[in-house]
Amino acid sequence: MEKTEPRTLTGTMELLPREQILFNQMKQKIENTYQKFGFLPLDTPIIEFSEVLLAKAGGETEKQIYRFQKGDNDLSLRFDLTVPLSKYVAKNYGNLSFPFRRYQMGKVYRGERPQKGRFREFYQCDIDILGDGELGIIYDAELPSIINTIFRELGFDQFTIRINNRKILNGLFEGLQQQEKATSILRIIDKIDKIGEKAVREELINLEINEIAVNKIMNFITMEGTSDEKIQKLENWEIESQIFQEGVEELKQVVKNIRLFGVMDSNFKVDLTIARGLDYYTGTVYETFLDEYPQIGSVCSGGRYENLAEYYTDKKLPGVGVSIGLTRLFYQLNELNLIKTTKKSIAELLIIPMIEDLEEPIKLATELRNLGIKTEIYLNDKKLKAKFKYADKLKIPYVIVIGEDEIKTQKMAIKNMETGEEIRVDLEAKTIANTIK
Amino acid sequence: MEKTEPRTLTGTMELLPREQILFNQMKQKIENTYQKFGFLPLDTPIIEFSEVLLAKAGGETEKQIYRFQKGDNDLSLRFDLTVPLSKYVAKNYGNLSFPFRRYQMGKVYRGERPQKGRFREFYQCDIDILGDGELGIIYDAELPSIINTIFRELGFDQFTIRINNRKILNGLFEGLQQQEKATSILRIIDKIDKIGEKAVREELINLEINEIAVNKIMNFITMEGTSDEKIQKLENWEIESQIFQEGVEELKQVVKNIRLFGVMDSNFKVDLTIARGLDYYTGTVYETFLDEYPQIGSVCSGGRYENLAEYYTDKKLPGVGVSIGLTRLFYQLNELNLIKTTKKSIAELLIIPMIEDLEEPIKLATELRNLGIKTEIYLNDKKLKAKFKYADKLKIPYVIVIGEDEIKTQKMAIKNMETGEEIRVDLEAKTIANTIK
Repeated sequence: MEKTEPRTLTGTMELLPREQILFNQMKQKIENTYQKFGFLPLDTPIIEFSEVLLAKAGGETEKQIYRFQKGDNDLSLRFDLTVPLSKYVAKNYGNLSFPFRRYQMGKVYRGERPQKGRFREFYQCDIDILGDGELGIIYDAELPSIINTIFRELGFDQFTIRINNRKILNGLFEGLQQQEKATSILRIIDKIDKIGEKAVREELINLEINEIAVNKIMNFITMEGTSDEKIQKLENWEIESQIFQEGVEELKQVVKNIRLFGVMDSNFKVDLTIARGLDYYTGTVYETFLDEYPQIGSVCSGGRYENLAEYYTDKKLPGVGVSIGLTRLFYQLNELNLIKTTKKSIAELLIIPMIEDLEEPIKLATELRNLGIKTEIYLNDKKLKAKFKYADKLKIPYVIVIGEDEIKTQKMAIKNMETGEEIRVDLEAKTIANTIK
Repeated sequence: MEKTEPRTLTGTMELLPREQILFNQMKQKIENTYQKFGFLPLDTPIIEFSEVLLAKAGGETEKQIYRFQKGDNDLSLRFDLTVPLSKYVAKNYGNLSFPFRRYQMGKVYRGERPQKGRFREFYQCDIDILGDGELGIIYDAELPSIINTIFRELGFDQFTIRINNRKILNGLFEGLQQQEKATSILRIIDKIDKIGEKAVREELINLEINEIAVNKIMNFITMEGTSDEKIQKLENWEIESQIFQEGVEELKQVVKNIRLFGVMDSNFKVDLTIARGLDYYTGTVYETFLDEYPQIGSVCSGGRYENLAEYYTDKKLPGVGVSIGLTRLFYQLNELNLIKTTKKSIAELLIIPMIEDLEEPIKLATELRNLGIKTEIYLNDKKLKAKFKYADKLKIPYVIVIGEDEIKTQKMAIKNMETGEEIRVDLEAKTIANTIK
């Protein structure tokens, strides 16, 4: 028979079992944390009407989306979890309780040009809190505490949640009468980590912004000090803008409340260069960096928006949310050998029967499973050595061999595959379970 | 602004949070069971090269598949999890350990005409055990024990795993010299539950099968007795066919070993009418029915195949697997009000602060989360009544209110939302956690 080459599309992630275990463990930790904070699960379809997904979008999104016709339907694969959330909330408004706290972890699709670390199919792990008409600013401080919990769960304690408020930036540009150039200025500011202060200044001058304004902008974005010092400086900043003052007040509230939520000062800071895209967020914005691995870029970002579902409903639904790009994060951490985990296999115990009559080994396996031990029994007819090799390759931590002797004496040895150590115990499920737990 | 109607494509499942919690709980129970038996997780991409997905397929599959062009790539959405598994194993053969036990739970896509209970996007929950060259028949008995565990976990104890062996059917047709009409005969036999014996006989006669053969077939498929009695009858069945004898011997082995795996006689039976499709399975086949709800149809099916990945590799990879169509199963059970679960909400406790200074309530929430209690704190500025209504709608089982008094006395009441009962305890995380656990 002619064979088809078993290819996988580049830009999709397909892991070997051992890596998949690590990936799932990370995903589970994120989900556990979302649940710990009382978020409700959602699972919207991956295929939606193109008209619905593209109600707002334009430009890049339209180019990147996977779109196709099936029968009479013009369909697309979702490119994020925010647009499906908007649709969902508009559609189910009457059946939801607000503040509506939902998490969703699922695959999204973008027609990226494949390159190392760029994915066409990838997991996003989103949480959002939506208000019905209004949502207290204090929720903007709850989200960083969730980010904080997640990265600690993942084994990192040196990370920084950088926080800003879009109103401050908008107010700055208003005060400097540079609103029309706001988009271009933001784009330049956003590059400061990459290109440095001098280049930013030059690009701003090239934008034909007057020197006084350029100086103001440069002073603003290079402002030094602790979060509190920055806020104090902003409160005294000479600028004619109501929205600027509002932003500063919100930022002050957020910083105060973040501490109440138990986030340490070493894990967050005010960073006035954070803008997070150009037209979506309207208040608080976040980006999160691992201090020792800045090259990874932001590992969790988000912010506050004024009106989630305006393309589908008249209801005003302000919200605040963050998203973790799990596939990319896993890829990067794995490349850097930074996945911190203890779990290497699914099965905790492998039973190797070396007798004809399998009654006792199988019964034991069932009993161990009922006691909560993930137990595999090796049933193929192979040499003992091959069976041990199997346990070794799968990193199953404990192995027991059951042969004639073990049945006769009702004693057996539990082998710890990591240390090589053997413990002799009674051939009895509870004893075995207690020994390896 | 003109609004886009927030529509969801028919044939996709989009649940309200309360139902989603139930769905996820079912999914989790299935996954836990798969892991309990030591299966390894896989997560292959949903988008694949059409050439790869359609290497074997034809007919219905080609018509139903979601296929589209993106750039230079001819892509499709997977229509099951078996073809991606074949590709995966062919591709990663050298990096896998055999018997390779994998589970995968993910969405698959079929362009079904939308009708009640038919889905275009639905979850399949698959397990397969693959051998490298060979795989012992005893694994065919392990799978029913997994099905058995799952349905008990889901709250059902009255279900029947119907078991047959394709070799017996093939041998029968061979012995009757009806191999050419085998496909048509199987199709007719398969309908016996729906159309009855008489109609089956008539259809067989219409197929121009001679009366002796029709009588043999009818005697065969209407054979009565326990599983053991049927096997005994089959052993004495007068038919000239080697393959028939092989099938009977395999079936005998499977029935014997199923009992070793702890499946009760009330939960499985030999059913000689089970065929499971026409060209895929080559040995043991299973279908599972809930005894009290036959209208749901088979809730878990599968079987033994000789060569999983023959379209991609020369390696011979026999295997045995079963699949649960979770989306359809959930839909059906939900319609019949049969979802058996205790968990109705994510959050276990709602803290309602009725004071300005949120320091203490927020600190308490953090402490409770650290103690493993899924805790939500209501932070929006609303009347107490509205906050209680929120807890009620979300079915959060416990609520505590923290006001001036509670802070002053350091005493508070935990309200059980189901019974209305209030328990007064110290305002202290550990005490609260112990009270509601």
